[in-house]
Amino acid sequence: MTRPTVNKRIVLAARPTGEPTADTFRLEETPVPEPGAGEVLLRTVYLSLDPYMRGRMNDKKSYVPPVELGAVMVGGAVSEVIESRYDGIAPGDYVEAPTGWQEVALASGAAVRKVDPAAAPLSTAVGVLGMPGLTAYAGLLEIGKPQPGETVVVAAATGPVGSLVGQIAKRFGARAVGVAGGAEKCAFAERELGFDACLDHRAPDFAERLAAACPAGIDVYFENVGGLVLESVVPLLNPFSRMPVCGLVAWYNATSFPGPDGTPALMRAILSNRVTVRGFIVVDFAHLAERFRADVGRWLRDGEIVYREDVVDGLERAPAALIGLLRGENFGKVVVRVAPERL
Amino acid sequence: MTRPTVNKRIVLAARPTGEPTADTFRLEETPVPEPGAGEVLLRTVYLSLDPYMRGRMNDKKSYVPPVELGAVMVGGAVSEVIESRYDGIAPGDYVEAPTGWQEVALASGAAVRKVDPAAAPLSTAVGVLGMPGLTAYAGLLEIGKPQPGETVVVAAATGPVGSLVGQIAKRFGARAVGVAGGAEKCAFAERELGFDACLDHRAPDFAERLAAACPAGIDVYFENVGGLVLESVVPLLNPFSRMPVCGLVAWYNATSFPGPDGTPALMRAILSNRVTVRGFIVVDFAHLAERFRADVGRWLRDGEIVYREDVVDGLERAPAALIGLLRGENFGKVVVRVAPERL
Repeated sequence: MTRPTVNKRIVLAARPTGEPTADTFRLEETPVPEPGAGEVLLRTVYLSLDPYMRGRMNDKKSYVPPVELGAVMVGGAVSEVIESRYDGIAPGDYVEAPTGWQEVALASGAAVRKVDPAAAPLSTAVGVLGMPGLTAYAGLLEIGKPQPGETVVVAAATGPVGSLVGQIAKRFGARAVGVAGGAEKCAFAERELGFDACLDHRAPDFAERLAAACPAGIDVYFENVGGLVLESVVPLLNPFSRMPVCGLVAWYNATSFPGPDGTPALMRAILSNRVTVRGFIVVDFAHLAERFRADVGRWLRDGEIVYREDVVDGLERAPAALIGLLRGENFGKVVVRVAPERL
Repeated sequence: MTRPTVNKRIVLAARPTGEPTADTFRLEETPVPEPGAGEVLLRTVYLSLDPYMRGRMNDKKSYVPPVELGAVMVGGAVSEVIESRYDGIAPGDYVEAPTGWQEVALASGAAVRKVDPAAAPLSTAVGVLGMPGLTAYAGLLEIGKPQPGETVVVAAATGPVGSLVGQIAKRFGARAVGVAGGAEKCAFAERELGFDACLDHRAPDFAERLAAACPAGIDVYFENVGGLVLESVVPLLNPFSRMPVCGLVAWYNATSFPGPDGTPALMRAILSNRVTVRGFIVVDFAHLAERFRADVGRWLRDGEIVYREDVVDGLERAPAALIGLLRGENFGKVVVRVAPERL
């Protein structure tokens, strides 16, 4: 393989107020660096786009520091190794690493995870078999703990997290009720993903439809959106229900929160129904990653679960794709194909 | 003892909108019933008044059914046995039972708990050694799980639950920060109860004072008030902090909740700090009652914890006392002395 001479990368140009715009990002060209001892040089193949990226654009304390202005946007990626100065990793290997929005990247060999391109499609290493998959698996099983016959509700039901939450809930004998934006996504969730029901949150009578789809209440609400869905879920929470909280995408672009105040209703439901609400970040469950890949890898090979990707071609289209993702315009896991798998 | 011929009782006359008023209650006189097989006839000595009673006045699904209109107001009480048709309980014994706002009551002998008047003051059976005590003990230790050096925050710090939460937190090596209404209560919490600090929630700069009193953030927030205190606590929650939710008294009389909406800030804190919020009702921890009474009974006898009661004389003053309690006007555990301990 010819060594590339120029790296194209996308940096954070300005901190957005509300929705990011084209001006939030800047495409740059930089020289390709040389790997030092213990490092590998990588050619990005698939870049993962995920809702958490919006939070990293804010200059605000969170569980990780924000992206600095002028720094490469963060993101997980699957890459091909171009050069290696790390034992056990060779050119031509594929690895998964958080190398960000760029065509070429350096990484510590110790910080990448080798991916077997024969075991599953490469892109799944940042999807159903990657961070979003582990988020669904660990949050649902470790916090949600669905029991046979219980009702599990999850929004963004055709997204990478929601779609796996629903399918794992079904595997554990629970009823899966999804929420998604639009009839096409809802039909896909019911027909392809096996949800017992999927409701369109854009319907004017969404709250009533959700209640009708959950006649025995809600035992597990896997929270990844907040907003109207949370508000509609609260009155349906059952005694001793569980709410893993992994995302709040409906609020990520919001700049103000007019009333009425929903806190009293939420806290009252938590109190009178003895609900457990627990926030988590996928890294909290890193110790489950091997078991997760074994379980979900097997279910995938056996055809027991399916996944859907929304592939965007070209790094320069990543900004628009992330903006669309935050609006819910994607249909499935968003991956940017930065370059072909094989050159 | 002469058998009483008339029972005075207070019934729910009307469901209040907002704050209860004198018209919410009605004093009635009824004949004294005869105990059937297995029953005991009781003379109420101390009636407990507690914030949860406000919730029972609403015609609304909760963890227990509401008080019916015209029915005796619910409440725990310590009583003397007048007559007994239950083996093992004799006239002159003292028992604790949820017999409500009345001077004389029938109860199933199997549903009362005998109280030893020599072990501790009788009124403590509905206070520090009763339901409020178990609420504090179980909620703090089973959900809050304070660790040495951590910071525990609790409101209504001079009330029966808050005062015990703070003192148990100290016993377990944590820092205890209380919140109370007014300088007198705060001084009592710091000087008599041993809180490291107690803040007046009426201070215009309460949020800043709370932050200053919790320089290392908050690890356990024992939630019994909601409202402004919760709002001020949210930005201070530490990673992996715990929030047992046992009451929301600031909102019990509220009829509307204007904005802004505090839900996004609460949910974001839960997510990014991986907070566990868990509602509980004291009956969920009934299995801990014996261990609780042994532990707290010993700490009381050893003088390691103290408690404060706010005693009101006469059943007819119970309505005004409950209204005051919901306004935070009480100073310590509110008990109504319905009759003398010995006639």
